[in-house]
Amino acid sequence: MPGKYTIGLDYGTNSVRALIVNTANGREVGTAVWNYEHGTAGVILSRDPNLARQHPADYIKGAEVTIQKALADAGKHVRGFQPAQVVGLGVDTTGSTPLPVDSAGQPLAFNKKFAKNPAAMAWLWKDHTGVAEAAEITGLAGKIRPQYLAKCGGVYSSEWFWSKILHCLRTAPEVFAAANSWLELADYVPAALTGTEAPRKLSAGICAAGHKAMFNKSWGGYPDAEFLLQLDPQLGALRKRLCPRVRAVDSAVGGLTAAWAKKTGLSAGLPVAVGAFDAHLGAIGAGVAPGALVKIIGTSTCDIAVWPDTEKLADIPGLCGIVNGSVLPGFYGLEAGQSAVGDIFNWWVHYIQPGGKKPLSHADLDRAAARVQPGESGLLALDWNNGNRTILVDQRLTGLLIGQTLYTTPAEIYRALIEATAFGALTIINRFEEYGVKVEQIVNCGGIAEKNPLVMQIYADVTGRPIKISRSAQTCALGSAIAGAVVAGKAAGGHDNYADAQQAMTGLKSRVFQPNPKAHEVYKELYVLYRKLHDAFGTQQGDGNLYGVMKELLEIRNRTRK
Amino acid sequence: MPGKYTIGLDYGTNSVRALIVNTANGREVGTAVWNYEHGTAGVILSRDPNLARQHPADYIKGAEVTIQKALADAGKHVRGFQPAQVVGLGVDTTGSTPLPVDSAGQPLAFNKKFAKNPAAMAWLWKDHTGVAEAAEITGLAGKIRPQYLAKCGGVYSSEWFWSKILHCLRTAPEVFAAANSWLELADYVPAALTGTEAPRKLSAGICAAGHKAMFNKSWGGYPDAEFLLQLDPQLGALRKRLCPRVRAVDSAVGGLTAAWAKKTGLSAGLPVAVGAFDAHLGAIGAGVAPGALVKIIGTSTCDIAVWPDTEKLADIPGLCGIVNGSVLPGFYGLEAGQSAVGDIFNWWVHYIQPGGKKPLSHADLDRAAARVQPGESGLLALDWNNGNRTILVDQRLTGLLIGQTLYTTPAEIYRALIEATAFGALTIINRFEEYGVKVEQIVNCGGIAEKNPLVMQIYADVTGRPIKISRSAQTCALGSAIAGAVVAGKAAGGHDNYADAQQAMTGLKSRVFQPNPKAHEVYKELYVLYRKLHDAFGTQQGDGNLYGVMKELLEIRNRTRK
Repeated sequence: MPGKYTIGLDYGTNSVRALIVNTANGREVGTAVWNYEHGTAGVILSRDPNLARQHPADYIKGAEVTIQKALADAGKHVRGFQPAQVVGLGVDTTGSTPLPVDSAGQPLAFNKKFAKNPAAMAWLWKDHTGVAEAAEITGLAGKIRPQYLAKCGGVYSSEWFWSKILHCLRTAPEVFAAANSWLELADYVPAALTGTEAPRKLSAGICAAGHKAMFNKSWGGYPDAEFLLQLDPQLGALRKRLCPRVRAVDSAVGGLTAAWAKKTGLSAGLPVAVGAFDAHLGAIGAGVAPGALVKIIGTSTCDIAVWPDTEKLADIPGLCGIVNGSVLPGFYGLEAGQSAVGDIFNWWVHYIQPGGKKPLSHADLDRAAARVQPGESGLLALDWNNGNRTILVDQRLTGLLIGQTLYTTPAEIYRALIEATAFGALTIINRFEEYGVKVEQIVNCGGIAEKNPLVMQIYADVTGRPIKISRSAQTCALGSAIAGAVVAGKAAGGHDNYADAQQAMTGLKSRVFQPNPKAHEVYKELYVLYRKLHDAFGTQQGDGNLYGVMKELLEIRNRTRK
Repeated sequence: MPGKYTIGLDYGTNSVRALIVNTANGREVGTAVWNYEHGTAGVILSRDPNLARQHPADYIKGAEVTIQKALADAGKHVRGFQPAQVVGLGVDTTGSTPLPVDSAGQPLAFNKKFAKNPAAMAWLWKDHTGVAEAAEITGLAGKIRPQYLAKCGGVYSSEWFWSKILHCLRTAPEVFAAANSWLELADYVPAALTGTEAPRKLSAGICAAGHKAMFNKSWGGYPDAEFLLQLDPQLGALRKRLCPRVRAVDSAVGGLTAAWAKKTGLSAGLPVAVGAFDAHLGAIGAGVAPGALVKIIGTSTCDIAVWPDTEKLADIPGLCGIVNGSVLPGFYGLEAGQSAVGDIFNWWVHYIQPGGKKPLSHADLDRAAARVQPGESGLLALDWNNGNRTILVDQRLTGLLIGQTLYTTPAEIYRALIEATAFGALTIINRFEEYGVKVEQIVNCGGIAEKNPLVMQIYADVTGRPIKISRSAQTCALGSAIAGAVVAGKAAGGHDNYADAQQAMTGLKSRVFQPNPKAHEVYKELYVLYRKLHDAFGTQQGDGNLYGVMKELLEIRNRTRK
């Protein structure tokens, strides 16, 4: 019997990837990447450093090009491969990346009138133009709807859905007025592929709605009209025009249109899954399950856990979000993250450039840092050079290094920075466990997990848990392909549920980093000290004397910078 | 009338300098330096990293060679110069640098039996072999003689007189038994030049006795016999054999012997002043006076102030010592210091070596750091990479840097380290003023003061006080020459007192660093934050939660290092 395949589309910040995967064994048989054409590396910028937009035309062309090329690539690797063997399709994207659409669900940016208006494009996840509006939303929710904040870590972010839309309403009212509704990119792509863009036809994903748009069944879906009206009457009116159906990734949005079938070579009617964010489907591709935390480690991290929704789960303070079904159906999806990991190591290597005439590379520092025993540098650092996402939800924090002598070396500092990110990871794990979400093993994926055994060993030694590495280097696209397999169903050559699909299609590398008990003992002691610093500078516990120090330094900095 | 001159001998760690100075105007007309012959750069080392000794033969030969050469040098610069125009001699040395002597005051190291025994040599200031004995002395004094500790900042150091002698008694009893007495180097050299080495003939200096040997008139001189007996009966017995007369630097020890006159060319009977430590006579050479703090800034600093002994002065916690007459007769001499200044800058440049393929030199970093405005880096550091001498008297402290982002540059950190040392300097000044010792101006000397205008401007901006620089680059030797002028007296061509001698012989460079009011305002805010960190990590004030962090890191380090 010929193999069955599904295809995953993974929309990143600069490019889109298509990946074709065998549903029986997870073998990745064809892939293609296409870089967005608009803007700078796919991102439309302006003089305002907070602005980051994308042109939706890139999303459409990207799907066409990468699907075609991935199918061709699979043809090279699998004898007799036919596009008709592809039985399902899934989509993951960045987010929150909302875009305004007309009543037919077409992006306003496709209308000539708005073709060059950045407000009519997709508001990329890292667009921070809505800082003031985020503060306004947080403030109002704090006063009248504290439950809204409890599900998103206590602070509503400028990166999220409502902040961006409210900012559009305030600064580009003609765009807001022309928009019938707003879709998340994760919803727009499946809708476009299946011709269900019109909000009344669309099934939106619970992942984006729950994590970024304050959607929760316990209060009847989106934030209530009264709340939105208090922010702005027009925002209140928008509520009725949002997509009414919100589903998890085991639902299909619809079937591939004939037009898309024609231009890609896939079969018309191919089931397309509800979309979700890259990290969430990435966690599925890495094998997330109760007790197994997935960390996607790059410049920063996204940490994803799941917990059965049949068990009680309290709000967990400091998490980016807890949303039922946002990762796996039937499970709470829990999202946490570290604001900087690889970025901190890059700072040391590329900004400070230690080491003299032969500057030390990452590899040089890895080698030298590996010879430093836990504890023997006398150093300790906080991993806050880019703020702290979880568990403090505070961007106005900065780095700290303590313990320097006159003989401290660059490699000792490098290792202290690695250890700091591991202590940050442990702090997230502890927070999960304090609220009953067990973390027995850790599955890492992403560039650092693939390439840096020193970092992985330190993570094992600090957390006292085995560290496993995802087999796939493309866990996000793999997760999307798994979603495609589940909406295809077993009868069509896919799987009937995520447990079966993950069992068949995901895997781990054979090398597992086991914690060294001696090192773990030392790190337990160091972690007590890390937490003292963490709590003194990051919380108002204790006498609160140092809580303001980093913030005041930032205020003085902002005031004195020209 | 031909000019009159005096000669200053300055015994450093690696070499001795002689300087010939015109008593009327401070003009330095002849100088010579001689490097000690024994050991490594003049220091005898062993496998024990705490051991640092010197051979007293170097002191004798050094005086002979440098006096001869300095006289010859003066002959080249002053037409018709005659050695007979030299009317007095002063001596400054490192300390506490005690050496065991026989009943004639001859160093035991001159005795063949002990010629190669390090315990019989001079125990150089930075010898730390007496750590355990220092703790024992501090412990006993804390219990039964708290007043002894109150005068030396609360802790008796391993670098000081009694720690070293007690360690000799414990570890080299044959040397201790053979010693009739122990002399400080600052007392031994004047004694040798005047043939008054025998303790019963010698006038010892109050500077060394008061700052390092717990000598204080208020309790009858040296520590009482009961106290010393409790440490060791033999130490109690030694007390009676210590030099009974202790004087300030306006007293002469005696006149130059005929033998020394013959071998140097100086006049027999030339008055030789009581010796003192380099920093104390250096402060005189820099123009120390009530209200004017002298900072000798090198790898570390020594800070010297004086205050009229006619006014009441409380014990000032954290100072290295307060000794009546240790600097200027008639004034309390107050000694403070920073454990590392230039050493911290050197750490950043030479250990971390930032900047990539073209590593940044001190000069590069100075230029780049000068462009950073106060406050705009968002950084703050503690200057404790080598512990904190004043006001915390705690070697078990380490560095701290706070405020790093992903874009922090090497020059910003360099500037933050400079600012940290300036905040450390201000903390010492504030401590003086809290106890009534006014600091209206600051006179800096030493290499960094001479060469680094950026550091000096930051010191002015941080302290809010004008920073002046000593005219002489050899303030220690100049201070010794001033001592020589005072013991010579006005009638002989010297001066009758220190006020007149300083007025005539010292001066300042014309460039004064005035505080920039705008910068000072920013630094006032930053200093509030510096003190928060200082008090949180360095004291048990507040909730004491962070007080142990640096110490525990050091304990873990010591335990985990191989």
